[in-house]
Amino acid sequence: MMKELVFVGLGLNDEYGITLKGLEELKTADTIFMETYTSRMPDFNMQHLEELCNKKIQLITRQTLEEENGQQILQAAELGKTIFLVPGDPFIATTHVTLRIDAKKRGVATRIVHGISIMSAIVSLSGLHNYKFGKTVTIPFSETPAETPYNVLTQNKKLGLHTLCLLDLREPENRYLTINQAIQTLQIVEQQKQQNTITPDTVAIGIARAGNNKPALKAGFLKNLINFDFGMPPYSLIFPGDLHFMEVDALIAFADAPVELKRLFK
Amino acid sequence: MMKELVFVGLGLNDEYGITLKGLEELKTADTIFMETYTSRMPDFNMQHLEELCNKKIQLITRQTLEEENGQQILQAAELGKTIFLVPGDPFIATTHVTLRIDAKKRGVATRIVHGISIMSAIVSLSGLHNYKFGKTVTIPFSETPAETPYNVLTQNKKLGLHTLCLLDLREPENRYLTINQAIQTLQIVEQQKQQNTITPDTVAIGIARAGNNKPALKAGFLKNLINFDFGMPPYSLIFPGDLHFMEVDALIAFADAPVELKRLFK
Repeated sequence: MMKELVFVGLGLNDEYGITLKGLEELKTADTIFMETYTSRMPDFNMQHLEELCNKKIQLITRQTLEEENGQQILQAAELGKTIFLVPGDPFIATTHVTLRIDAKKRGVATRIVHGISIMSAIVSLSGLHNYKFGKTVTIPFSETPAETPYNVLTQNKKLGLHTLCLLDLREPENRYLTINQAIQTLQIVEQQKQQNTITPDTVAIGIARAGNNKPALKAGFLKNLINFDFGMPPYSLIFPGDLHFMEVDALIAFADAPVELKRLFK
Repeated sequence: MMKELVFVGLGLNDEYGITLKGLEELKTADTIFMETYTSRMPDFNMQHLEELCNKKIQLITRQTLEEENGQQILQAAELGKTIFLVPGDPFIATTHVTLRIDAKKRGVATRIVHGISIMSAIVSLSGLHNYKFGKTVTIPFSETPAETPYNVLTQNKKLGLHTLCLLDLREPENRYLTINQAIQTLQIVEQQKQQNTITPDTVAIGIARAGNNKPALKAGFLKNLINFDFGMPPYSLIFPGDLHFMEVDALIAFADAPVELKRLFK
C-alpha cells in the first residue's frame, strides 16, 4: 500500500474550485482530512465533494491540528495514501510547512497538488500588471492599528509598485475585516505618521469574493470607496502604484473606476 | 441563447490542471478556443480534454489572434457562449486584457474562471513565505543581457525581499531559457555593474516543471546550481532575500539545500 501525504489545494469559493487532478487524487485516497480555517470558501458543500470522490472527508480544526501537532494526519499517512485538503493552494500560507517537514522526518513521502490561490485570483481580476506588484501585506484585526501595512504601502508607492492587501479573517468566528475597516485603520496610521500615503484622493481597488461567479470589484478614490457596499466576504484591497494606461483602461472597464483616472495617470 | 465570453484558466502541466468549474463551463459552451503560446503545458492532451467536455476545441495561434484582433473569438461570442482557454490563469499575464476590453465594447459580457498560475505554484513549492516576495521579474532571451532583472534583484535584496524570476520562453519555437543561462546572464551584468548582487556564493532556488507530478527543485549556491541538471522545462528561479529559519528548514527538507544554509541565515 502506498504510504504518502498529499497536500491538495481546494482552490476558491466552493467544491468546484478543485482541479481534476485534485479530484482524481481524492478518489484513490485511503484517508482524507480537510481544514477550512486558513481561508473562507463561501459556497463549499462538503457532502457534495464527498459524493464527487466517493470518500468520507474528516474535518480538522486549527485547535486539534495544533494541539496534537498533526498526529492524526501523520499516523494515517504511515498507514496509507492520506490527503490533506487545504483551501486555496496548500502552501501559499505557510501554516502547514511544519506538518510537511514532520512527515518527512517520519519517512513519509509528500507531494503537492496545487490549488488556485486568492493571491493570483485577485491580481488576475484587477487587470493590473502582475510584475508591478511589490511586497504583499495583511491588514490585521487589532486594537491599535498596526503600522506595518502602512509602511509596506508607503515603501511600495515610493518604488511605483502596486500593493496587495489581504484582509484578516477569523473563519471560526465568522469575522472578516471589511474593506471599510481596513481603510479606516490605514487612515488612523496616516494621521500619526503623516507621510501622505493615505488621503481621500488615494486610488484603491476593493475586491470581494474572488473566485465566486459574481465577485465585486470597485476601483476609485478612498473618499468614494469608504462607503461602498461590497457585499459578502472574503475581502481584499489593492493600492496601485504607477499605473500604465492599459491598467487604467482595465480598471474603468471592469472595476467601475471613474474616468478621471485617465487624467491622473499617464 | 447566452452571449458571453468566458476566459477559463487551464492551470498547469496538463488537462487535469483545469478546475471542475472550468470543465463544467466547457460542457455548456457553444464555441471553444484555446491558446497555448503564453505558457508551456508539457503533458497536455487536447483530444483528451475534448473527450472530457464532449466539445471541439479550436487552437488559435498568437499570430492569428494578433493579426485579426481576436475577431474570430469576438464574433463567436456575439452568437453564443464562447470560451477562451488560456494556460495558467487567464489574466496573470496581461496578454488578453485587450480582448476582454474589446468584448465589452461590443456589448459582450465577460467572466473569468481562474486557473492555477505558475506564480503561486512556484511560491508554494519553494516553501518560502509569500508575503516576503518583492517585485517579480522576467529574464528574457537577448543578445546583450538585460539590466532590468539585475536591478530588480538588487533592489529586492536591499529590502530583504525574495525575487521570483520567470524565465523567457518561445513556445512555438520550443525554446526555453534555462536556469543555467539565466544565471550566466545575471553574472555578465554583475561584471558590468559590480554591485555584489550575483556572486558564486549567492543563494538561489531553481524550479523546473511546477505543477507536474515530479517538479525539480534545487536550492544552493550559484556555484553549485550553475551545473545542476533540472531536466525538462518550464523553468524558474528564486533569489531569496532575508530568510527565516522556517524557510531554511523547508529548503533543506524539500529543495535539497546544503545544511550550511542554517549558518548563513538566522
